[in-house]
Amino acid sequence: MANTFDVVCVGNALVDVIAHADDGFLDAWDMVKGSMRLIDEDLAHALYGQMGPAVEASGGSAANTAAGLASFGGQVGFVGKVAADQLGEVFAHDIRAIGVHFQQPRDGVDAPTGRCLIIVSPDAERTMSTFLGASSLIAPDDIDEDLIGSAQVIYNEGYLWDSPSAKSAILKAMQTARRSGGRVAFTLSDPFCVDRHRQEFLDLAEHQVDILFANEAEICSLYEVESFAEAAERVAGHCDVACLTRSSAGSVVMTSDGDRIEVTAHPVPTVMDTTGAGDQYAAGFLYGLTHGRDLENCARLAGLAASEVISHVGARPEVSLAELAHSHGLA
Amino acid sequence: MANTFDVVCVGNALVDVIAHADDGFLDAWDMVKGSMRLIDEDLAHALYGQMGPAVEASGGSAANTAAGLASFGGQVGFVGKVAADQLGEVFAHDIRAIGVHFQQPRDGVDAPTGRCLIIVSPDAERTMSTFLGASSLIAPDDIDEDLIGSAQVIYNEGYLWDSPSAKSAILKAMQTARRSGGRVAFTLSDPFCVDRHRQEFLDLAEHQVDILFANEAEICSLYEVESFAEAAERVAGHCDVACLTRSSAGSVVMTSDGDRIEVTAHPVPTVMDTTGAGDQYAAGFLYGLTHGRDLENCARLAGLAASEVISHVGARPEVSLAELAHSHGLA
Repeated sequence: MANTFDVVCVGNALVDVIAHADDGFLDAWDMVKGSMRLIDEDLAHALYGQMGPAVEASGGSAANTAAGLASFGGQVGFVGKVAADQLGEVFAHDIRAIGVHFQQPRDGVDAPTGRCLIIVSPDAERTMSTFLGASSLIAPDDIDEDLIGSAQVIYNEGYLWDSPSAKSAILKAMQTARRSGGRVAFTLSDPFCVDRHRQEFLDLAEHQVDILFANEAEICSLYEVESFAEAAERVAGHCDVACLTRSSAGSVVMTSDGDRIEVTAHPVPTVMDTTGAGDQYAAGFLYGLTHGRDLENCARLAGLAASEVISHVGARPEVSLAELAHSHGLA
Repeated sequence: MANTFDVVCVGNALVDVIAHADDGFLDAWDMVKGSMRLIDEDLAHALYGQMGPAVEASGGSAANTAAGLASFGGQVGFVGKVAADQLGEVFAHDIRAIGVHFQQPRDGVDAPTGRCLIIVSPDAERTMSTFLGASSLIAPDDIDEDLIGSAQVIYNEGYLWDSPSAKSAILKAMQTARRSGGRVAFTLSDPFCVDRHRQEFLDLAEHQVDILFANEAEICSLYEVESFAEAAERVAGHCDVACLTRSSAGSVVMTSDGDRIEVTAHPVPTVMDTTGAGDQYAAGFLYGLTHGRDLENCARLAGLAASEVISHVGARPEVSLAELAHSHGLA
């Protein structure tokens, strides 16, 4: 079968609800700055009631990556679950409008569309409280084997591991991709998520995942080590390619062949909101990888996409990443 | 009765859906740049389907003014109608979160919450297509006479004239305010809106309205004259105070006593989105007026608030207008 899609992303289908607040607000709600925690519908309602005026924008980690890939000009699909409600309509509209293939039956879903309540701090860090809602109901039946089988790469988010049915769906997607000769990419998503599922994530990294994305806190958590250098050595023995991001210190790509590629962070005049930096890094990297670029070029595209998204509030690109790459000599 | 509220605003309760597009998109949809047109639910669905990725943020002209007044530190109420749906929850949350009193029964409303589809052009102009939905169902029974009677000023938007029941509600609010010794403020909203209701707006200006807000196109349309100077002379004979805005040329305040106060526009580094400039001008002016400021100070507060909102995408202030006024020596 022809590779119709460069990448198919599987993840939580969420609408972000973004408000600003100071650190006292995080303390009052026992939030750990920079992390994501899962909350139920009641807590989501209570928290929303105390948040300041907000804006809504489609989000979801792997969905943001899909949007970034489409902005680069890639052929991308997204698999995730929304309800037949207004926020579900918003999610479906936005991801299709940027050019991502998204075909999700929305009827009969017994939960509202999921949302991620995001507090942006004065230092531009984002802290997330996620009510998964309909997105957690994704199940193996939602994995279209023809769609997955037609992708060069499938990209999955670790966040989905928090839902048993979603986990089964991801495992089916990974097996389907491998059978079809596709490559499997995976992001560790969040250090607390790694804490919750460490052994399974270690098994995945060793046996299922070709391309792993992680930031420094996540990869150190995975191997329960203090030193980034040690974590980087460990992961290189497990995955073909490991992309390790270090915020303003740039990123390191390790390969199982023993290559180590370091790329500096792309400069940003003012960091406005770090939401989506990792998602867009993955978008740039996977766009490069599915378009025949060498790993250094992939990492540079990745850093460029991350720099764009942190320069404004919101987790998806506001300019054409294809044009941005062109203007930086990376096209 | 004590004046519990500085201002009570009555208007359409809408959620803005904001996307960027070039002028070709406006042409393809027969839109007149910078204007607002009413559309039905089917057309709203079709247009949304062709728009690019969007963000959602609470809007509505008089509701934006209420938000601005609250940001200055004013005591403000808002009267408008939303449905018991997700967008209605968004609207109610945002206006309450900024400190506006909003008590709206949402059950039994037989239409979804209204929305305003906004196209922001590369030159930062905004063009609006509004599906009024639930907001047009506001009726005289929704006017709480105690609430209206407790306000120093009530502020109404001309846009409401497009719905017969909303028009009746406004007229009741105006009569209630006058009986209680409150003052009546009104915005002409849009030149096309003036076209649709010219004679009634002329009657209002002459007999009901103490403080009128209009931009150059609107006031010229009202009197069907080509020259701003002529329109300004005419309106000064009709209203106690007429605030006439001229975009980058600043504003002119005319009074029935023959005063004419000109204020230059507050400089803005880059105009990002003109949405809400008029709404925030009214907020600044009415905040000043209800806090004992002279008309020149009112107009300067107005221009400052307008400058803040056009310096970012979105129609409500992103910073505390009270602090902004303080830092500019206008507190």
